[in-house]
Amino acid sequence: VAREGVRSGGAAGHGRLSRDLPIGVLVSGQGTNLEATLRRIEAGTLDAEVRVVVSNRPSAPGLERSRARGIPTFAFPRSAYPSRDEQQEAMRATLVEHGAELVVLAGFDQILGADFVDAFSYRMINLHPSLLPAFGGGMHAVRDALEYGAKVTGCTVHFIASDFPDCDSGPIIAQEIVPILESDDEDALLARVHEVEHRLLPDAIQLFAERRVQVDGRRVRILEPAVT
Amino acid sequence: VAREGVRSGGAAGHGRLSRDLPIGVLVSGQGTNLEATLRRIEAGTLDAEVRVVVSNRPSAPGLERSRARGIPTFAFPRSAYPSRDEQQEAMRATLVEHGAELVVLAGFDQILGADFVDAFSYRMINLHPSLLPAFGGGMHAVRDALEYGAKVTGCTVHFIASDFPDCDSGPIIAQEIVPILESDDEDALLARVHEVEHRLLPDAIQLFAERRVQVDGRRVRILEPAVT
Repeated sequence: VAREGVRSGGAAGHGRLSRDLPIGVLVSGQGTNLEATLRRIEAGTLDAEVRVVVSNRPSAPGLERSRARGIPTFAFPRSAYPSRDEQQEAMRATLVEHGAELVVLAGFDQILGADFVDAFSYRMINLHPSLLPAFGGGMHAVRDALEYGAKVTGCTVHFIASDFPDCDSGPIIAQEIVPILESDDEDALLARVHEVEHRLLPDAIQLFAERRVQVDGRRVRILEPAVT
Repeated sequence: VAREGVRSGGAAGHGRLSRDLPIGVLVSGQGTNLEATLRRIEAGTLDAEVRVVVSNRPSAPGLERSRARGIPTFAFPRSAYPSRDEQQEAMRATLVEHGAELVVLAGFDQILGADFVDAFSYRMINLHPSLLPAFGGGMHAVRDALEYGAKVTGCTVHFIASDFPDCDSGPIIAQEIVPILESDDEDALLARVHEVEHRLLPDAIQLFAERRVQVDGRRVRILEPAVT
């Protein structure tokens, strides 16, 4: 996975790589995870470059965040295409054209067809607001965990891969827990889950930038950082 | 739930109750969670009394642990009864006869019929070696979590109640996480899960002894300790 690219042996900063990882980000909504990613890049703690931001919703506020920073942004409304496959083929072509080596779903709400998944299998990651496999498959994982009466929930970053076609079922790269408190309502819990997401997603992208993610069936191993 | 009983206003020790909670424990195997519970009682940090230990397996090592301590123990092998319902009716009668107010499943491997569940609905708890609802419904939750590639698993103590007839689906009283390490195999992970179980189950029983468990639909609220 993402084995291409060379590691720098240089002495710069925190072990900065010779080349930032080119990523494409898919958003449907606010894009707060995109924002968190961009801030980490700007802070110099994430060796990636957002080459393109793509949405299925022209009005997604997440598009504006990237446009304001001069990042190429594109909307592909479903209604503009005769079929979902053609819509997603246009998205695919745009991601490839802009050189995205890793595709990041950051709050993307459309089911991806098999062709799109095949195009980026094991080079595409999703962020889900629960400890998968718990509370997968829905659009309201935080509410679902609260209503279930779970005492712990969290966030998961996982692969999307042709080998695991079911929704939210791809191999898990990273998980972090969020305790559910007696006093929690949905808003309070959502806020704490988002806080963790905004750390977990950039951290996971950085693992790809450092070529430290190794897939072994369903188990994803995180390699030790190289000594530079 | 378990609202009967009075709380002591006395000054003894760590706020010891006027009356220890009488429990019945069901085991099928080693009974290490029963052992952990008995040790906490012996150490004076669990205000409960194991009145009776019941098994579906006459050879369960867990029976010997309690017998050696002079606790009444009974085996109800399935083969000794014309039906599972009759077997479980005998178990029920024995638990009631010995005054068990809380029934604790500590590694019990038989599905409980509706009559048995009705008899102890919301007065019976189970310990499951995963963060439910993840990896529920099977006999190998730790292995399942490892093979799924989860980064976090844990233990759950939950109610068994007529309102939630599906396996491992009752309202959750307590959960604690166990991180899954890169180096884990099943034995290593099992050992760490057991360690947490041996703390979580007695802690949950103590909450019942202190009358601090309140059910609200699927959500279980843990009340603040009373000031004594």
